[in-house]
Amino acid sequence: MSSDEPPFHTIVIAGLGLIGGSIALGIRERWPSIRIVGVDQPSVLAHAMGSGAIDRAANSVADTGTPDLVVLAAPVAQNIELLGQLSEWQRVAGVAPTMSGPRGGADKPPLMPAPIVVTDVGGTKRDIVAAARSLPSGLPFVGGHPIGGAERGGFGFARPDLFAGRPWIFTPDEKGDAPALERLERLVSGLGARPARLDAGDHDRLMAYVSHLPQLAASALMYTVGGGAAEGLRLAGRGLVDTTRLASSPASVWRDIAASNHDFIGEALDRLIATLTELRRDLGHGQGLEKTFNEAGRWRAELMKGKE
Amino acid sequence: MSSDEPPFHTIVIAGLGLIGGSIALGIRERWPSIRIVGVDQPSVLAHAMGSGAIDRAANSVADTGTPDLVVLAAPVAQNIELLGQLSEWQRVAGVAPTMSGPRGGADKPPLMPAPIVVTDVGGTKRDIVAAARSLPSGLPFVGGHPIGGAERGGFGFARPDLFAGRPWIFTPDEKGDAPALERLERLVSGLGARPARLDAGDHDRLMAYVSHLPQLAASALMYTVGGGAAEGLRLAGRGLVDTTRLASSPASVWRDIAASNHDFIGEALDRLIATLTELRRDLGHGQGLEKTFNEAGRWRAELMKGKE
Repeated sequence: MSSDEPPFHTIVIAGLGLIGGSIALGIRERWPSIRIVGVDQPSVLAHAMGSGAIDRAANSVADTGTPDLVVLAAPVAQNIELLGQLSEWQRVAGVAPTMSGPRGGADKPPLMPAPIVVTDVGGTKRDIVAAARSLPSGLPFVGGHPIGGAERGGFGFARPDLFAGRPWIFTPDEKGDAPALERLERLVSGLGARPARLDAGDHDRLMAYVSHLPQLAASALMYTVGGGAAEGLRLAGRGLVDTTRLASSPASVWRDIAASNHDFIGEALDRLIATLTELRRDLGHGQGLEKTFNEAGRWRAELMKGKE
Repeated sequence: MSSDEPPFHTIVIAGLGLIGGSIALGIRERWPSIRIVGVDQPSVLAHAMGSGAIDRAANSVADTGTPDLVVLAAPVAQNIELLGQLSEWQRVAGVAPTMSGPRGGADKPPLMPAPIVVTDVGGTKRDIVAAARSLPSGLPFVGGHPIGGAERGGFGFARPDLFAGRPWIFTPDEKGDAPALERLERLVSGLGARPARLDAGDHDRLMAYVSHLPQLAASALMYTVGGGAAEGLRLAGRGLVDTTRLASSPASVWRDIAASNHDFIGEALDRLIATLTELRRDLGHGQGLEKTFNEAGRWRAELMKGKE
């Protein structure tokens, strides 16, 4: 297979928010011949069609022709629901998976052809990987997670270079579908991402610290500062602005992530609360503060290695 | 007085770190005729002289000729010490204030002429304002605080535009020296800053929230993430990078700030810890999380009004 041959020919993207929309735009740039079918609410579909990001708008995954890849790009809980619908629909070919729930098959959709790959882009992986494993249909699923995102969500902020230089983690099963994984890695490399592989549990534990905890900390900080010193916001410097950038993230996405990774996030939050409590006890003395600051400075230098 | 006449003629800057160094460089650009005398460790003075930021290097404030402004730009506790030394020296003209402590006056310095203004740039204001008020010499002191700073401290990162567009808060006494305050405001406006006035106690309370709390949160977060998931740092996205930018701040500066504002910072930390504890309890359910995220998003929008 030449490296310029597209890894897939018809891709369904269910959920055209920031991530799903950016995948569509990135594919457009890299492989214009890939046919892209978008599934979302009518207003979002109109926007995506209007900007040329997708070739066809569908209200349900069942109505998408013969895709060889389905990308689930809705919030985590909805992806799991869509996965179940997709599997059920493939099995009985009578129930159409939609973005708003299953509906009866008055007009029967065409049977989806067998060699389909399904992936997702959710921020937690154990739940959906377990859900995929328990499906009766044996739908070939590989969990995925592009790291990054941006300040604001929604198709309006999607851009083709969103994934450039960023990790895109896949969490294949031990007994996973190696050719499917390789095609997915080729796809995301084409979007500029750096594919990586992790066990779903390891992914969720690490993300609890490097992604979910910063999000919760930023939102809690902005909530506390606004509630405690609203009249000081006009005097705030770049420090508060950077530290709370994540605080504009949508609750809808994070409610699902928090619920599906609550054990690891709970552990990480406990450690953060313990560190803050120690700092609080030490305010007047400074020795503990010095130790925490110095160690934080070293971790920060480590984090920035190879970045910027 | 024409608006281009410099507000001061000879300025002593005690402490040529990021802030003191940037003040020197900014004055150089705006009013080249102002004579600048720097006071710091020999190696820093050599750097500042070599780059043309100062006209003269002095080891002690007593050895600085006849300044009409002294800017205390060392960490908070040292500024208070320098203020006491300056006052004592002015009173008895036999003890030279130095960056490392008072020393005996073997060679007596010339008496500093009377109409001198003293200000500082420390991150907390109640302590130094109270110290100035209790000085026997009645040295005319106006507390100051330029908001902002940068990722890294030290003269090497100083730049003339550090204060451009940023607030510079003064905390004058009720019975304060109005002409001195006006000259200071004209000076910092010349550096591009937006002068503002606040009561010292109000300043410290607001800064506990909009400046000190974000710093402690960023350091605690980086400390927790590094300690809990070092192997995940390479997978971290822009979220962690932004949220922990402040974590490279030097402990030396923040130990003093924490100690001199421990009551208000303690209150702010307690509120942050309470918010995080609530989020932790709510991880599996999501209703509290949704409320916190939504309110945080509104405060974030408020914070960004008029910025960028």
